[in-house]
Amino acid sequence: MARERQLSRRSLIGGAAATAGAVALTGTAAGTAAAATRDVDVAIVGGGLAGLTTARDLVAAGKTVAVLEARNRVGGRVVNLALANGGVTEGGGEFIGPTQDRIKALADSLGVATFTTYNTGKNLLYKDGKKTPYATDGLLGSVPPIDVAGLANAAIVQSALDDMAKQVPVGAPWTAAKAAEWDKQTFESWLNANAIVPSAKFLLDVATTSIFSAQPRELSLLFVLFYIAAAGNESTAGTLERLTDTANGAQESRFVGGSQQVPIKLAATLGDRVVLSAPVRSITKSGGKYVVTADGVTVTAKKVVVAVPPPLAGRIQFDPLLPAARDQLSQRLPMGSIGKAIAVYDTPFWRTDGLNGQVVSDTGAVRSTFDNSPPDASYGALMGFIEADEMREYDAAAVADVKAAVLKDFATYFGDKAKTPTSFVLQRWDNEGFSRGGPVAYAPPGVLTEYGTALRTPVDGIHWAGTETSTYWNGFMDGAVRSGERAAREVLAAL
Amino acid sequence: MARERQLSRRSLIGGAAATAGAVALTGTAAGTAAAATRDVDVAIVGGGLAGLTTARDLVAAGKTVAVLEARNRVGGRVVNLALANGGVTEGGGEFIGPTQDRIKALADSLGVATFTTYNTGKNLLYKDGKKTPYATDGLLGSVPPIDVAGLANAAIVQSALDDMAKQVPVGAPWTAAKAAEWDKQTFESWLNANAIVPSAKFLLDVATTSIFSAQPRELSLLFVLFYIAAAGNESTAGTLERLTDTANGAQESRFVGGSQQVPIKLAATLGDRVVLSAPVRSITKSGGKYVVTADGVTVTAKKVVVAVPPPLAGRIQFDPLLPAARDQLSQRLPMGSIGKAIAVYDTPFWRTDGLNGQVVSDTGAVRSTFDNSPPDASYGALMGFIEADEMREYDAAAVADVKAAVLKDFATYFGDKAKTPTSFVLQRWDNEGFSRGGPVAYAPPGVLTEYGTALRTPVDGIHWAGTETSTYWNGFMDGAVRSGERAAREVLAAL
Repeated sequence: MARERQLSRRSLIGGAAATAGAVALTGTAAGTAAAATRDVDVAIVGGGLAGLTTARDLVAAGKTVAVLEARNRVGGRVVNLALANGGVTEGGGEFIGPTQDRIKALADSLGVATFTTYNTGKNLLYKDGKKTPYATDGLLGSVPPIDVAGLANAAIVQSALDDMAKQVPVGAPWTAAKAAEWDKQTFESWLNANAIVPSAKFLLDVATTSIFSAQPRELSLLFVLFYIAAAGNESTAGTLERLTDTANGAQESRFVGGSQQVPIKLAATLGDRVVLSAPVRSITKSGGKYVVTADGVTVTAKKVVVAVPPPLAGRIQFDPLLPAARDQLSQRLPMGSIGKAIAVYDTPFWRTDGLNGQVVSDTGAVRSTFDNSPPDASYGALMGFIEADEMREYDAAAVADVKAAVLKDFATYFGDKAKTPTSFVLQRWDNEGFSRGGPVAYAPPGVLTEYGTALRTPVDGIHWAGTETSTYWNGFMDGAVRSGERAAREVLAAL
Repeated sequence: MARERQLSRRSLIGGAAATAGAVALTGTAAGTAAAATRDVDVAIVGGGLAGLTTARDLVAAGKTVAVLEARNRVGGRVVNLALANGGVTEGGGEFIGPTQDRIKALADSLGVATFTTYNTGKNLLYKDGKKTPYATDGLLGSVPPIDVAGLANAAIVQSALDDMAKQVPVGAPWTAAKAAEWDKQTFESWLNANAIVPSAKFLLDVATTSIFSAQPRELSLLFVLFYIAAAGNESTAGTLERLTDTANGAQESRFVGGSQQVPIKLAATLGDRVVLSAPVRSITKSGGKYVVTADGVTVTAKKVVVAVPPPLAGRIQFDPLLPAARDQLSQRLPMGSIGKAIAVYDTPFWRTDGLNGQVVSDTGAVRSTFDNSPPDASYGALMGFIEADEMREYDAAAVADVKAAVLKDFATYFGDKAKTPTSFVLQRWDNEGFSRGGPVAYAPPGVLTEYGTALRTPVDGIHWAGTETSTYWNGFMDGAVRSGERAAREVLAAL
């Protein structure tokens, strides 16, 4: 109950964020023993992109809001990490690509520019102990150097998944004609019947863990199809390739100054409406209003927007209780298991070897990498995803052991120079108390068809935001922004 | 934060429990504004059979304990409901059967007797709009009146499941030779490939929802096999039939006075060590001891035993944070969806029609029923389970609408007399804030193999109990008792 400690942190954005040009947010005075109180039109739980976007739109409509953020920084699953060399890298969501219109519009409005993800040179396939460079711009976007039968099979599977995804309405996947059939099996069961060539199965497995940070056995086929369908916008059908590609895909571009620039600058426009270090513990309806109780601050409001992932929303104490459908939904959408490791070098030396820094591998702690160097390449940075089974293996490991495993992998892929970075940073989302996994909450079999409608249906005056509630780019920054815009519209219509 | 109200309820066992001969438990004084504090060897979270058994064994070993129970009664998922006619019925777990040795020993020690579940006369199969009485003592225990091909197929499937279950070590299902294969598919996928005759699939579907209150699509095949393996004891292999049968099965007997007599009498032996209306909100390690904070009372202890279902344990605030494996486990074991409806009549009229009150049906809100009359048959009581899809359909319905649906089903099965009960009681576990479903937390695909070890592994001084942690009779009262005995042994070894 370290309330004083948390109050004393309330006016900080924290970490690298504070060094990145953000306006310091003022909260309640440090050291005050009694809890501060606020009365607003709308209380917003969570200061990630979803909650902040909700707040922006409500404020623009003349409403008063309070955004209660558990951490001592804004951004949620989007965070800049400071590097020893003065640079910045991303510990969470970092990429932006075509049809991600709402995060783009938000970044534009805040003056946060994008630059193209480094994508010059060849990819590396590391498989069966062999390293093969190949020309492509994504996992499935071109022709990886596997056997012809595998390539043919992978192409058929990819096409079949895209076709099935077209039959899934992004606003209500549970209404697809074949929803029941697709929701009663794991993606693994479907792959076993369809990705019958081992090399094709390998590609699909890597694609799955790269996208969901979950293994195919953990995912409902219907959820996978929905996620593919959601990888587009109102005028462009989603495709698996857009999820996995760099050029023309979800990894196409990055943000100058790091992706957290977007929530930091957005929060700055909201000033002291954003309260940091204020994890919400309970939401109680009393006398026609909501009382939202966080550590150190209590907010009364006409409406509440909960903009945190469903499994974390389920940990808030609600009075009256949430309907069973909503509570059981929150028991059934677990977070994936993900971490990111970034090794920093004096130069992006792999570029001179003709490599773009992107790896697809069948082994190691890191099986998918990107060149995370800054736009001016003033130093080199290799970013490796640690996902699903690999992340679970390393969640409880000492940082030194994770570092050793990651650098071993980097050296396997890029040579001995990779063994001696100038610095190394590690972000394990599974160990973060206010995320407990990432990048997104996913649906095992049977969940979307039975509980899907509870994802966005308001409960009295409580509305739901967060990327998990988005119809497009679910699981991405763009989905978070879309969900905030939708939640704000809902609340404005209801106020 | 109705702390005063909760303190004032602390000395009540509550509801039917208070009328059923229990000693009133004394707690902290009512009306005290400041939170009470206690210092004990072991704090136990949850006053169900698991927590109370833990307490019993620790007290017997000379340790001091405090049992913090969220509700204003003990028993958790075991509760007696008072009937208007002065009788009592069970809203939760009620049956006991062969190899359930530990709940039997506990009941014996407390002087709670058992009686045989009414099982004289014929079962009813209601299928395709047709009602067929048949002689059997359980769903799979005899020969239900379906086509010969279906019977043959069901027998083969049942035998295959039992054989596979024999290959699953109950203490570590994830070490089964085929664990990976069995944990990557839903039980539905396996049934689709094996229960190929529709009538056989129907029987297996009804068995599944009756056992788990979840549909086959929601369950990992490995978890189903583990659950079958757990339906036995150290000297008797588990079988599917023992799960589903009445005679010689898990529904064989009931407790005189209602099953909650067991936890009520057990709690009475613990006196004011049990604190009611004390939902635990946080568990914090501080200065080498644990501080367990509940509404109205704070307990300091050397060790903690958390004896609530994993999804509810995940809602407690832990400091330091739980390891990722344990937290993500708690995100991945949802509660089933279950309710029970009991209609009371002047007499058990179905008995004179030669029926035992047990139905297996392919339609309606209630698809499985039992004769819940008291041992002296001084009145009649029909109990209907509302499970999985059906429970979800009726979770948010008005009681009157649920009653109408249930009585319509009862009348379909047992005739028009069933339409006019003298009283009707309904228990919807999905709507209970301190259960949020039932009868047990189950594992979707991929969970046991990746997270199973976190089920029982202590986290520093925090130990885990509850029926979900039991190796035998997982999900049953017997499993709860076994888990408490095991947790007490663990703690005693560590203290």
